[in-house]
Amino acid sequence: MTDEQLMQVALEEARIAAALGEVPVGAVIAKDGEIVARAHNLRERGKNATYHAELLAIDAACKALGGWRLWQCELFVTLEPCPMCSGAIINSRLRRVVYGARDPKAGCCGGLTDLFALPFNHHPVIEQGLLQEDAQALLQDFFVMLREKRKKK
Amino acid sequence: MTDEQLMQVALEEARIAAALGEVPVGAVIAKDGEIVARAHNLRERGKNATYHAELLAIDAACKALGGWRLWQCELFVTLEPCPMCSGAIINSRLRRVVYGARDPKAGCCGGLTDLFALPFNHHPVIEQGLLQEDAQALLQDFFVMLREKRKKK
Repeated sequence: MTDEQLMQVALEEARIAAALGEVPVGAVIAKDGEIVARAHNLRERGKNATYHAELLAIDAACKALGGWRLWQCELFVTLEPCPMCSGAIINSRLRRVVYGARDPKAGCCGGLTDLFALPFNHHPVIEQGLLQEDAQALLQDFFVMLREKRKKK
Repeated sequence: MTDEQLMQVALEEARIAAALGEVPVGAVIAKDGEIVARAHNLRERGKNATYHAELLAIDAACKALGGWRLWQCELFVTLEPCPMCSGAIINSRLRRVVYGARDPKAGCCGGLTDLFALPFNHHPVIEQGLLQEDAQALLQDFFVMLREKRKKK
């Protein structure tokens, strides 16, 4: 699968999250272009602060591949990773991260800060912007819908 | 339980990790001085990059309390949190973090960088140094033992 196809799958995951009432973020981990794990944000339904799409995908990929080093794997995620997920990217040694929309409030690939510019013991390739309009539109629609719901209450 | 007693339990968890051949780090989450969750690093045995003591404790505390917001809880951890665990502390809204030893290689409470000085949407109280000599000694003994083992091979 191409980068764009993999990001399309991440967007599908984000749409599943939206349908569940979760902030729409989706993630895919691939090895040699094949999907190893896919996940979506489940913080509210899962009642768990660690259930971000990327962290769930990294957890699933470690389980699928039977090891904590994902250095042959790439992550495709619709929104810029937060500090927790950026740290999990470093800890799991992912070799490349492609993300869609920027997150100026919590993004750690340059949005709010750039964790990957610091001298941690692993530095993945980071690429921004793939299908970002789709990821951004999903997020905007979700928050508009949330505000409308709150007005009705 | 007092802060020191809670950190003693975190040190017990770190000792369990060492006995399993894991880098000895232990964590405890408490609410009103009572233990809600305790965990130790399990990265090697668990074959999972996300199995740090703090992340496992936060995950267990969310499950125990049935929600992702741990704003009434405090974390006691033997080693300064890494970026992933510091991010999980922000995401789970823990109100206070007490850690023992500094980690100049990956610590995100001032060791390598200070994530909590950035304008994220949550800022816990951070305290450093409680029983740090014990935490440091455990880590040093573990790495000496590891080097000895490698020499013998």
